[in-house]
Amino acid sequence: MTGDYTVGDHLLARLDEIGVQHVFGVPGDYNMAFLDRIVEHDRISWVGNANELNAAYAADGYARVNGAGALLTTYGVGELSAINGIAGAYAEYVPVIHIVGAPSTAAQQAGALLHHTLGDGDYRHFARAHAEVTVAQAYLSAGNAIAEIDRVLATSQRERRPGYLVLPTDVAASPAEPPTQPLLVPAPEASARVLAEFTDAARTMLAEADALGLLADFLADRFGVRAEVAELVAAGRIPNATLSMGKSVLDESAPFFTGTYCGAASEKRVLAAIEQADVLLSVGVRFSDSTTAFSHRIDAERTIDIQPCATHVGDRVFAPLPMRDAVRALTGVLAESGRSWARPDLPPASADDLADETPSDSAEALRHATFWPTIQSFLRPGDIVVAELGTSLFGAQAMRLPAGVTFIGQPLWASIGYTLPATLGAQLAAPGRRTILLIGDGSAQVTAQELGTHLREGCTPIVLLINNGRYTIENVLHGGERRYNDIPRWNWSLLPAAMGGEWAATMRASTPAELSAALASAADPADLVLLEAVLPPSDVPEVLVRATEQSLAAAQDADAAR
Amino acid sequence: MTGDYTVGDHLLARLDEIGVQHVFGVPGDYNMAFLDRIVEHDRISWVGNANELNAAYAADGYARVNGAGALLTTYGVGELSAINGIAGAYAEYVPVIHIVGAPSTAAQQAGALLHHTLGDGDYRHFARAHAEVTVAQAYLSAGNAIAEIDRVLATSQRERRPGYLVLPTDVAASPAEPPTQPLLVPAPEASARVLAEFTDAARTMLAEADALGLLADFLADRFGVRAEVAELVAAGRIPNATLSMGKSVLDESAPFFTGTYCGAASEKRVLAAIEQADVLLSVGVRFSDSTTAFSHRIDAERTIDIQPCATHVGDRVFAPLPMRDAVRALTGVLAESGRSWARPDLPPASADDLADETPSDSAEALRHATFWPTIQSFLRPGDIVVAELGTSLFGAQAMRLPAGVTFIGQPLWASIGYTLPATLGAQLAAPGRRTILLIGDGSAQVTAQELGTHLREGCTPIVLLINNGRYTIENVLHGGERRYNDIPRWNWSLLPAAMGGEWAATMRASTPAELSAALASAADPADLVLLEAVLPPSDVPEVLVRATEQSLAAAQDADAAR
Repeated sequence: MTGDYTVGDHLLARLDEIGVQHVFGVPGDYNMAFLDRIVEHDRISWVGNANELNAAYAADGYARVNGAGALLTTYGVGELSAINGIAGAYAEYVPVIHIVGAPSTAAQQAGALLHHTLGDGDYRHFARAHAEVTVAQAYLSAGNAIAEIDRVLATSQRERRPGYLVLPTDVAASPAEPPTQPLLVPAPEASARVLAEFTDAARTMLAEADALGLLADFLADRFGVRAEVAELVAAGRIPNATLSMGKSVLDESAPFFTGTYCGAASEKRVLAAIEQADVLLSVGVRFSDSTTAFSHRIDAERTIDIQPCATHVGDRVFAPLPMRDAVRALTGVLAESGRSWARPDLPPASADDLADETPSDSAEALRHATFWPTIQSFLRPGDIVVAELGTSLFGAQAMRLPAGVTFIGQPLWASIGYTLPATLGAQLAAPGRRTILLIGDGSAQVTAQELGTHLREGCTPIVLLINNGRYTIENVLHGGERRYNDIPRWNWSLLPAAMGGEWAATMRASTPAELSAALASAADPADLVLLEAVLPPSDVPEVLVRATEQSLAAAQDADAAR
Repeated sequence: MTGDYTVGDHLLARLDEIGVQHVFGVPGDYNMAFLDRIVEHDRISWVGNANELNAAYAADGYARVNGAGALLTTYGVGELSAINGIAGAYAEYVPVIHIVGAPSTAAQQAGALLHHTLGDGDYRHFARAHAEVTVAQAYLSAGNAIAEIDRVLATSQRERRPGYLVLPTDVAASPAEPPTQPLLVPAPEASARVLAEFTDAARTMLAEADALGLLADFLADRFGVRAEVAELVAAGRIPNATLSMGKSVLDESAPFFTGTYCGAASEKRVLAAIEQADVLLSVGVRFSDSTTAFSHRIDAERTIDIQPCATHVGDRVFAPLPMRDAVRALTGVLAESGRSWARPDLPPASADDLADETPSDSAEALRHATFWPTIQSFLRPGDIVVAELGTSLFGAQAMRLPAGVTFIGQPLWASIGYTLPATLGAQLAAPGRRTILLIGDGSAQVTAQELGTHLREGCTPIVLLINNGRYTIENVLHGGERRYNDIPRWNWSLLPAAMGGEWAATMRASTPAELSAALASAADPADLVLLEAVLPPSDVPEVLVRATEQSLAAAQDADAAR
């Protein structure tokens, strides 16, 4: 650390505190003074991305593994390039701090006609745009910076959503004192009375339940109650499922896990566990068209719905009641009852069928029906699995994951291309874990240049590129083949070398035998692996067909209701 | 055209009227019904891009050549990915129509939790963000669509700035009548009195001027008075110059053109023509840090400053006075005087030196001092030259262009990576013209995947890639070499083949002799040409050094003034 302590140093100290050891972004002349402090920092590294949207995606993937992420862009051009990634973090509850290097306070006050401005002297256009997609914002000055940095970071951490900081060049360099107190992240607390009333209500409802089910979704992951939910499940031996957006929040190798609940398109075992429960315990669930196409049939009267700050028991609301307190209280109720809610009557799991399926002829063309079981059996406990929206996410959600796998997807915001940079972030957040990316060729083109950053940083993801020459998901959704969904055909085996990774392993598999052989050689990669799986253009995962039928039916219902 | 006439068809008819024959964008499930109408249209083609930011840049490049451009994105993810490109079009006065396919009106009114939303039921977040960077916006309904489409397109055309249309799926398909009247673009008109008073004031000021200079900038291009300015220059034989942002608005092969004015860093001949004029005619000029670093010394008292809707003669303002009327009136004043303002006393043009420079040893390493003269002599009348911000733009602005060349750069908004997609748009707007892109390796990585679209569309740009392995401009600006400005080293000669263009010509030149030979073989390309010019990392164009000195001095002045 050179020179005196600055506002920039304070910001880095706070980022370090919330777990940020890598800052993503792109250099620009309004952020370089702060960037100098990052590269001089003992514990925080700079990861330069190929563009700002990719940086935002990388910071998002990092935060999903690590609990917090950060990116640094430059004023105007940089921050607006990143804003779609920030909006995705907002939609899906990911605490990313977006730091924007801005022109000096003096230049802004003078309304100077500087580059990266709209030329009208108004320096707040892009802050207003970001206010739409962030949970807390601050335009920093030398006077307010310390308090405002702490407020924005604490709010982002508490709400699990992105924060936005505009850091003018002079403010970054302003003198500051090292913090003497840790960052205070105020947490809501349940009163003893609310907790007692909730516990009574839950006990009453559960007393009459013969069949109990548990449904967990992404907010259980975002609000950090994964371990508590596992204890709840174990205490009552409760049949359980996740929504695709919450995939991996439950231990899928545990005995009472049934699969992914996606409304009417769910497997029979999952439908029975969730929709035929007398009482449903619902933890951090949000229903959207992406996850159930609104085909879910959940009776609120028989549901204990635990949300981040409040819980419904039937039509009664208990608040403020943090998710963790509610889950723990429920576990206590189940433990005191001593009952088991195991349901040997449930239909068998077709996820097991998936694993057991063996292609009749391993030299035939590779198809989704054989691709996904092969990938499932390739996975190991502790892997990070990242699945791009579309064919990949639909196929991957049917896999039963080993214990301790982190599954990353973006089904709600659903921004194509998200996963290639998100994988970079995820792997840098957990370099000791094997990271596997499942992505289609159309999606990979959107953010392809980030492969170069993977290579420069020495990352070793196993990239499974599903190549069928088009935006398959769009063809399925819009019902038919359209020329505009055909994408340029790339020669993927050349791409890593073109982007600087002559040493990267590139493979191509168009039969089950080739896929198995390639995976065997890629199982413990020392370098980046790009494995191109060639699948027929018109072949799609079975679950995608079912989900699409649901989705189209829901759309028709909506139209009919108008 | 299938089916009955719809709102979508009306929009396409109006786009066709303003000159849009290509719509750029990315398919998404909220825009596909409208996309079907585009691909069925007789006169409008769909150009699918690799991502939405690239689509916005392409539409911008198209509009700079063609007078109007359009892109189609999908709700949320698509429109936010593109917003930085729209902001650039706003800052630099480029009329691009951004059409966003949105969920159905019914779903929006219900606040449904759909994918591509923030999950909060508020469907106006992204429209509010776009209101910051567009000149007109409309959220279309079946009732307002016809009037609002016409209003937004007309405003965009009149103001030369982007417009924003949200097109819900049901609105796109709503029935409409084919328009019976052409699109009305209201133009401001000067009253006879204002015009007469302006003419008198100009005549009086000019009567006392022995030395006359003319400075033209980008707004003269955007408001369509290029031909009128040429007549004005010819009428008075006026020594003239452009700002870099207005490069090619004047005929640089004409006798009275002196060069690029960039304030104190200008060549002596340009400085004398502009700053030592008794009266300066200034057409469509905006001074920014990008063009002059505020080192310009222009005396407003001795300037006739013609802006789009008003003209200053010294401290008097004449408004409303459209630019075209003011320029024509001035031409009349000069013609009636019969005088010539040619100035044989001006210092000689160093632009000629640039052209005449011959490397002493054509086998030595290629340097900027030889690179730019070689490129200058390669250019032909009517070429389109696109120069990326940074080394390329600084180098290119010193070239003297043949007649009829269109020069495209983005010095004010200054978004790195803009030119690779903008070149796609420019070439599709004028397929008969040779198109040359000058870009650095750092910038090309930002938007590299658009090379695949160039190849798929059969475009034949000559891409001159200046490869020095870093963000040179950032190193120069921040004063020193930083590791974060070193970018991943790509193998550019592999990239076209990786992106589907096995037939594209790739070349590499690291000596003047190699450059000349490569250019000779690329002069009339039948396919895309990627010519990698290898330059030493620390070598920069002379003008960049001078401009940077100015810029740093300006920044120090600003700091000192605080």
